[in-house]
Amino acid sequence: MSQYRTFTAADAVDYARQFGGVENPESLVESQEIGDGNLNLVFKIFDRDGISRVIVKQALPYVRCVGESWPLTLDRARIEAEVLQIHGEYCPQHTVKILHYDPQLAVMVMEDLSSHAIWRGEQVNGVDYPQAAGQLGEYLAQTLFHTSDFYQHPHQKKADVIRFTNPELCDITEELFFNEPYEVHERNGYPRALEPLVASLRDDDELRQKVAGLKHRFLSHAEALLHGDVHSGSIFVAEGSLKVIDAEFGYYGPIGFDVGSALGNMLINYCALPGLLAPREAADAREKRLRDVSTTWQSFAEGFLALAAEKTQDRALARPGYAAEFLQKIWRDSLGFCGTEVIRRTVGMSQVADIKNIRDEAMKNECVRQAITLGRTLILAADRIEDADALIARVRQNG
Amino acid sequence: MSQYRTFTAADAVDYARQFGGVENPESLVESQEIGDGNLNLVFKIFDRDGISRVIVKQALPYVRCVGESWPLTLDRARIEAEVLQIHGEYCPQHTVKILHYDPQLAVMVMEDLSSHAIWRGEQVNGVDYPQAAGQLGEYLAQTLFHTSDFYQHPHQKKADVIRFTNPELCDITEELFFNEPYEVHERNGYPRALEPLVASLRDDDELRQKVAGLKHRFLSHAEALLHGDVHSGSIFVAEGSLKVIDAEFGYYGPIGFDVGSALGNMLINYCALPGLLAPREAADAREKRLRDVSTTWQSFAEGFLALAAEKTQDRALARPGYAAEFLQKIWRDSLGFCGTEVIRRTVGMSQVADIKNIRDEAMKNECVRQAITLGRTLILAADRIEDADALIARVRQNG
Repeated sequence: MSQYRTFTAADAVDYARQFGGVENPESLVESQEIGDGNLNLVFKIFDRDGISRVIVKQALPYVRCVGESWPLTLDRARIEAEVLQIHGEYCPQHTVKILHYDPQLAVMVMEDLSSHAIWRGEQVNGVDYPQAAGQLGEYLAQTLFHTSDFYQHPHQKKADVIRFTNPELCDITEELFFNEPYEVHERNGYPRALEPLVASLRDDDELRQKVAGLKHRFLSHAEALLHGDVHSGSIFVAEGSLKVIDAEFGYYGPIGFDVGSALGNMLINYCALPGLLAPREAADAREKRLRDVSTTWQSFAEGFLALAAEKTQDRALARPGYAAEFLQKIWRDSLGFCGTEVIRRTVGMSQVADIKNIRDEAMKNECVRQAITLGRTLILAADRIEDADALIARVRQNG
Repeated sequence: MSQYRTFTAADAVDYARQFGGVENPESLVESQEIGDGNLNLVFKIFDRDGISRVIVKQALPYVRCVGESWPLTLDRARIEAEVLQIHGEYCPQHTVKILHYDPQLAVMVMEDLSSHAIWRGEQVNGVDYPQAAGQLGEYLAQTLFHTSDFYQHPHQKKADVIRFTNPELCDITEELFFNEPYEVHERNGYPRALEPLVASLRDDDELRQKVAGLKHRFLSHAEALLHGDVHSGSIFVAEGSLKVIDAEFGYYGPIGFDVGSALGNMLINYCALPGLLAPREAADAREKRLRDVSTTWQSFAEGFLALAAEKTQDRALARPGYAAEFLQKIWRDSLGFCGTEVIRRTVGMSQVADIKNIRDEAMKNECVRQAITLGRTLILAADRIEDADALIARVRQNG
């Protein structure tokens, strides 16, 4: 049994030689730490030709937030590795491959994705991947269906609920998604100019009652093994390819949380584009983003229904019509969680490059304002937005 | 550490002397096994004066169903004891007191309730306990509120979800409540004369889709630590007193399941009364049963809302109005689960004395027919029955 120690660059190379599954392990000679250093160390391991071959990722025993340290269990490395292994079993084409992990060292070795780029960065730069949204929908359908009550034996599902109980990472979501953006809180990161708008969220009883309902569902609806943080920053894309990474927030939760997180980040990008690109390019990229929103949902919904029709194991849940009825619950949840994702990434602490990269301050404020009002609309109107077309109409109406 | 062995009458006396908390342990001299012997041994322990002083209950490693043996974990004794301890912490006045339990022996010692009678038997005989329904509502409010996300810290709640994961007993409910009554199944226990009616349940797509939704919520909505089997046979009553026993089906599930199970058994009694009592007494007892239904819900709802207003710990769930909104979800769930309870106890395997004690066969069939149609109505119309008054109107309309 190994003992936890923080890896050096040399440790990472040694480890990759042992567990990287590379044919000539001795060809691995160098590493570079590419993580942001707040939550994890992430080492790229290079061979003699300077080509990166595998990734070594180690969890740190704390997360550095704005000005304070938040201690975090190393068990999240186990959860991340095991979620990705299970998701990889059901959707290998869109889940990063885990080659090895060690629970004591809180370290995992995984495939190198240097040929890919982080989707968020590409969206910020106006680079389009027309296939990505459909592939993301497929990932969501495969992973969420196969870990749900439709497919899992009740005993296996109950055992997995235990195995993926993730109190500390859920804690972060419970605070950052559902509490802080609606309170006066030092960690919030919205522009000061928007104080009146943000104050109006705090004073909106109906909104906060809806957010309470979403938080309650996040706390109690154990529908499937979620990724828990599917945003465009945890998705790698390349021409024809999409790979999801970073599943340390994984746990058994409401399916709409994953779907809504994915859609929410597309809508933040939609709101930010006028601040990121020239007007004509921005308008064009916005249309593509709306296409992505629609395609992600359609791909997920069709995939989920097809899997339900073909592979449902539970005798009661297999009734014709039930999966489609449940999909309506997922859709309503998705819209609400999508709204909370948009708000937590604009009002709250977890600011994103889509917004941060806008240089003109007035423009940035206007984009954020638009995102916040959209997020609020989605939370309030979740039960009245019938389908993806209606969602897109609402987005356009918002500005 | 003790090892499991099946208790003899003498073992039970010895054990009660050790752990019964009786002042003169040597005064305990005799025991009588009073269980049905299918799931558990239940010993009454008597003193020299022939007065029963404590109960010793031991779980057997199997449950004997119609003609077959269903192996069952002894861990259910731990779950039963620990659920009753937690419920007893929040509602000592209406939870049987656990004096001691031993997980290895799967045995517990608890207070003697000889001064009480099983409520079902009293209802069958037309004996009224006007205070009981209000007390049951109070038990439900106290136990379900205090173990919910409103009150529990998320870390504690997640730990308790693990601690009360109850796969084998949930399995029984999943089969007997939600599958078998809607299928051709050898364990079903309805009168043969009602075959056409029961067949019409199997053929009712809308009904079975609703039952699928209820089963899915039973499988995935971890809202509170349920008793899991609150029916009139697991409730003791006396003048001014009510005590709930038998919590081996406890787990974290939808609050409406406990509330619905409780209401469902009152409604079965309502349907059975014309077969149990003379016409005038039956009519009178039926009114009292409807009063019980209404009082149980009102007492639960008022209790839950008052506790939510006073004691909610979660910052988001504490929003004014949210508890009342969530209570609407509980009400809809309760009606649906109430319907499945009525059907599983008339169509399914778990037949009850209210029906079994009806001597006239034609009358029995008519009572069962009424119960089945009522159960079906409640499942189908759960979203459209606004409140307890509307429920009672539906019950009267049913016949």
